[in-house]
Amino acid sequence: MQPGYKRQQILDVATDHFGRKGYERTKWADIAADVGIGSTAIYHYFESKQHCLYELMGQALANFQERFDRNVAAHDDWTEALMAVLVDLFDLTEREVQRARVVVAKQGLIAIPRTLPREEAARVRALNGTRDLEFAWGAFLARGMGTGAIPDSDPKLLARAALGLYNSIWQWCRPGGTLSLDDLGRFFVDRELAILGCATELRAPCFPPRRRSSLDL
Amino acid sequence: MQPGYKRQQILDVATDHFGRKGYERTKWADIAADVGIGSTAIYHYFESKQHCLYELMGQALANFQERFDRNVAAHDDWTEALMAVLVDLFDLTEREVQRARVVVAKQGLIAIPRTLPREEAARVRALNGTRDLEFAWGAFLARGMGTGAIPDSDPKLLARAALGLYNSIWQWCRPGGTLSLDDLGRFFVDRELAILGCATELRAPCFPPRRRSSLDL
Repeated sequence: MQPGYKRQQILDVATDHFGRKGYERTKWADIAADVGIGSTAIYHYFESKQHCLYELMGQALANFQERFDRNVAAHDDWTEALMAVLVDLFDLTEREVQRARVVVAKQGLIAIPRTLPREEAARVRALNGTRDLEFAWGAFLARGMGTGAIPDSDPKLLARAALGLYNSIWQWCRPGGTLSLDDLGRFFVDRELAILGCATELRAPCFPPRRRSSLDL
Repeated sequence: MQPGYKRQQILDVATDHFGRKGYERTKWADIAADVGIGSTAIYHYFESKQHCLYELMGQALANFQERFDRNVAAHDDWTEALMAVLVDLFDLTEREVQRARVVVAKQGLIAIPRTLPREEAARVRALNGTRDLEFAWGAFLARGMGTGAIPDSDPKLLARAALGLYNSIWQWCRPGGTLSLDDLGRFFVDRELAILGCATELRAPCFPPRRRSSLDL
């Protein structure tokens, strides 16, 4: 077994529980039981259910940031980079969808300082993760305005609008229904392009076949 | 003193506390103290802090619904009705902004069934309020598609996108900053029109002078 394997297993089980039943209704002891670990031993990995939540959020945000950076770096042309970033937002595994749902549902908790030291450190990492991502989007959009690819406006406000629309999806969308991630992606990439003020002929991108799952509305 | 006055006073004080400090950090006893009522007497009005939250959400949703219906009924022309609805979304008092912030921050709690009878009844009212509003938007957008005012698409998805973008504003926007509600409204009404696929010449509506406050980003 690799080092960190058990820790990641706890995070994965927690993601499934939080995403499916909701954070409040998930008992910390149930996660321990599902992982096959004593409820004392689990405290070696996380100080609390909330510590686990913050770590899970931090991972999700780091993943979104890494993917964003990679897609931006892979394209010299700004518009091509934008399309790659937007299409990639919907290339998610079922667990990544659940994780996005948890991040969106509990993002309010990121603002509240905690007393347990490791819990607080994880919270601050998650908070910085959201700020970094928002800043990266703002800087990227400002560059698009500079090149004339999108109309001038306030890049910070525009980043918040684009991310706000995307996050809102995970408030009602859950894995396992009739709508595919591709259909969802096609609809919302178009709307993101519209928000940013992109020319109409850019719309309706082609979604390559990838890993994905159907969703429940 | 009018009947219901004290009850509304509790709701108003709770709105200010929840909006400013957050729901979790607000003590139920502090609300009682601010209203000048004993912490036993306050239970005559609300079974719990969460009961009060649900009532406050239900009021907010009923208010949004009533304003939506009024604006739609006031215009025979679909596009004029849409503009009236969108501009009205930003005609908010400072307390209404706080209330919108509370609704958005705690909307996850609407899905969790409760055991206290009046609390549960208030939760169900709030839940139905969100569904009714979403349904009304969907029906309105379907009518716009029928008249050719906006391009055909899934009205339910489009309603969720339009409402999702609007709700996301209240996740980061708070009263008392440098950005006016008018500036915020101008920016986001344009983006809502873009999401809906409205023709470009409709953009940048005129905001009449009304009650409002500045906002903090």
